[in-house]
Amino acid sequence: AGKSDLKSAERSIVFPVSVVLPAGGTGERTGLQTPKQFCLFLGRPLISYTIQAFERVSWIQSIVVVVAKEYMDLMTDIVQQFQHTKVRVVPGGSTRHRSIYNGVLALSEEGEEGKPATDKAKVVIIHDAVRPFVEEDFLHKIAMAAKEQGAAGAIRPLVSTVIATTSEGYLDHSLERAKYRASEMPQGFTYDVIHQAYQKCSESDFEFGTECLHLALQYCGTNAKLIQGPPTLWKVTYKRDLAAAESIIKDTLSRSACVITGGSAQAVTLADALQKAVAALNVELDVIPDLTGENGAYLLNDWNFIQVSVNRSCLSEVEALLIDLEAAKRALLHPLVVILVLLSGSDELSVSGRVVEPEAIMDLASAAKLRNILLYGIQLHQSKDTQRWERSVLRVAEITSALIRERSPALVGQLLQA
Amino acid sequence: AGKSDLKSAERSIVFPVSVVLPAGGTGERTGLQTPKQFCLFLGRPLISYTIQAFERVSWIQSIVVVVAKEYMDLMTDIVQQFQHTKVRVVPGGSTRHRSIYNGVLALSEEGEEGKPATDKAKVVIIHDAVRPFVEEDFLHKIAMAAKEQGAAGAIRPLVSTVIATTSEGYLDHSLERAKYRASEMPQGFTYDVIHQAYQKCSESDFEFGTECLHLALQYCGTNAKLIQGPPTLWKVTYKRDLAAAESIIKDTLSRSACVITGGSAQAVTLADALQKAVAALNVELDVIPDLTGENGAYLLNDWNFIQVSVNRSCLSEVEALLIDLEAAKRALLHPLVVILVLLSGSDELSVSGRVVEPEAIMDLASAAKLRNILLYGIQLHQSKDTQRWERSVLRVAEITSALIRERSPALVGQLLQA
Ligand SMILES: [Mg+2]
Ligand SMILES: [Mg+2]
Repeated sequence: AGKSDLKSAERSIVFPVSVVLPAGGTGERTGLQTPKQFCLFLGRPLISYTIQAFERVSWIQSIVVVVAKEYMDLMTDIVQQFQHTKVRVVPGGSTRHRSIYNGVLALSEEGEEGKPATDKAKVVIIHDAVRPFVEEDFLHKIAMAAKEQGAAGAIRPLVSTVIATTSEGYLDHSLERAKYRASEMPQGFTYDVIHQAYQKCSESDFEFGTECLHLALQYCGTNAKLIQGPPTLWKVTYKRDLAAAESIIKDTLSRSACVITGGSAQAVTLADALQKAVAALNVELDVIPDLTGENGAYLLNDWNFIQVSVNRSCLSEVEALLIDLEAAKRALLHPLVVILVLLSGSDELSVSGRVVEPEAIMDLASAAKLRNILLYGIQLHQSKDTQRWERSVLRVAEITSALIRERSPALVGQLLQA
Repeated sequence: AGKSDLKSAERSIVFPVSVVLPAGGTGERTGLQTPKQFCLFLGRPLISYTIQAFERVSWIQSIVVVVAKEYMDLMTDIVQQFQHTKVRVVPGGSTRHRSIYNGVLALSEEGEEGKPATDKAKVVIIHDAVRPFVEEDFLHKIAMAAKEQGAAGAIRPLVSTVIATTSEGYLDHSLERAKYRASEMPQGFTYDVIHQAYQKCSESDFEFGTECLHLALQYCGTNAKLIQGPPTLWKVTYKRDLAAAESIIKDTLSRSACVITGGSAQAVTLADALQKAVAALNVELDVIPDLTGENGAYLLNDWNFIQVSVNRSCLSEVEALLIDLEAAKRALLHPLVVILVLLSGSDELSVSGRVVEPEAIMDLASAAKLRNILLYGIQLHQSKDTQRWERSVLRVAEITSALIRERSPALVGQLLQA
């Protein structure tokens, strides 16, 4: 057992690992028309998030997604639109086990397509399309244990007591909670174990069985290693889970923003004050003068942007930012937030004039929205009254973090007052 | 069994029913400092929603909330602040069963406090503080079955396969899913059964037991009737459940809004157009001229408000509405949304002037926010260009439903452009 002790620092895997992702569910428990795996979260289907969770793991070489025949076209479109590269889509069978078996068979064909035999998956990870938050660390534990034991599966403590019922609907007995666990996904198998289990199992297993670990035990004599997974392995099952999943996705996208000051001293002062104010709101801010040189990297990762413009009567700076973002194709996968903060230089301006016409921001935002960029404006006025200035900065911080968190398409193009 | 067939139309209950609500959890599974039952949702603790679910049921006569000693003061404050009337707070014991027993004993004291003996609870419903969405219909089923059988409990199908593990952490066997159920809450007992079960049970039961139904079976020979409950019975357990619960609460508060037109023909035209536009967004709108007479009832229920003001240079109409709302004490339980729609009469105004200064709305909103009323403004311009007008109306609809749904405190006082 000491051999399977894993440190997250040592995550290289020297044997081929592939994934089978059965995505045949009909979503009846959410009460929605669309099966859960195809429900959109910020414009992107849930299954695309799950695929991404595997694709970004360097040691996973291929992913077979198994879908019902009527969803083959939709799934193929999703793979293309969201630029998945390790994915093959194959048609499912009439039950979950038949679908998984189809996926496993598709893997065995892979080795034959001109690739060397050593590329054939040594370990197969089976997961659910509707568990999008699985992490590399845990996948590594499952893959290593599967390699060593032949089979491995995620478990979680039971949340409710499990009881046996009589046929008339009365309590028969309750189980001792400590002895039992909920069997979750992912599970891992050596290719030979899962292949042999499905070759040997009966029609009845294919029809009514639910547990791959059970087949490995019954037909290969393999007692799966059980590993407790984190709560994030949870399965999007009910309608309430859609809200929970959206909230987690939004949290992930809302952690950090990049303030572009243009180098102006006033903008830098504002950015520094903002940095302190948003820290209390759980947003992290990086402050940079512009996106040239090494700062170009900000365009490639999951950053939100705050462009500070001082005393400008045009939108040239934020227009340049939008062009850079479009060139970097950042907004293809999820809506990107850009907030233009217009800082005007004196108290006098606060009543009389606007620096930029609100209509101009609305027009720019409408065009950006078509490219999945959500542009909002915030106007504030420099003030020598310290209290007033601090109140304005705090309001910019609150508005900024609310806009980044909520990503409301209805509010794009608005010029808000701080 | 035919006798216990229930129709939701016949919900009167002719025997006294009381509730014991153990609220001693420490919330370790959410990873938060605050126990889940005290986490705030729109400014109100979760347990207050759960209490409300019982308080609004006419045939439930009293609710005993059992909390750890260190939370007695907090709980007493909650009862007062959220105006709960059927609630008594008692201190808990060192385990869940000891706490529930304390609650049951507190009920038996009730009958003695000068009330006639017939008021003593005949049926006791036990529920969790962190299952706030339980509905009257299901409580009725549990109460009736408990009266008839001595004990009754909610069950749900198992979401995951349940497996038995060996002491070394390997798969021993998996259970046949169809034979087992998850035991959930609420559960119901005749007073005599639950009281006797706790009187007879052992110290070990008090210390390690989890299942009240099991005690009823073991010590009273009562086989509980099991009734499948709806998914809404679910228990707020993990951090993700907080987001799911908030989403459900927000949905409930966002279903309907009341448009006040002031009787102006232009405002009525806008309101009618809005009514069509928001229908597609799942918001229902009632249109009324004002809140006099029978329309005063809108102030008392869960409505959001949209005040349309035409060509006004002051905020008198919305100020009057805020005064009415405050008098009705509507915003005590959850934040109330008021949207001021400023309709200006012609295209010419659209560039030149504002009808109302944005600063005035911000000041009014800041004051209203202290009283838990969230005030937002939307400005739009009458236009003879049909397309332009329809676009503006659609934008008002989108902004309105986003503001009502999201209830963002950061955006109050903003004057948005449609
Ligand atoms: Mg399974
Ligand atoms: Mg229980």
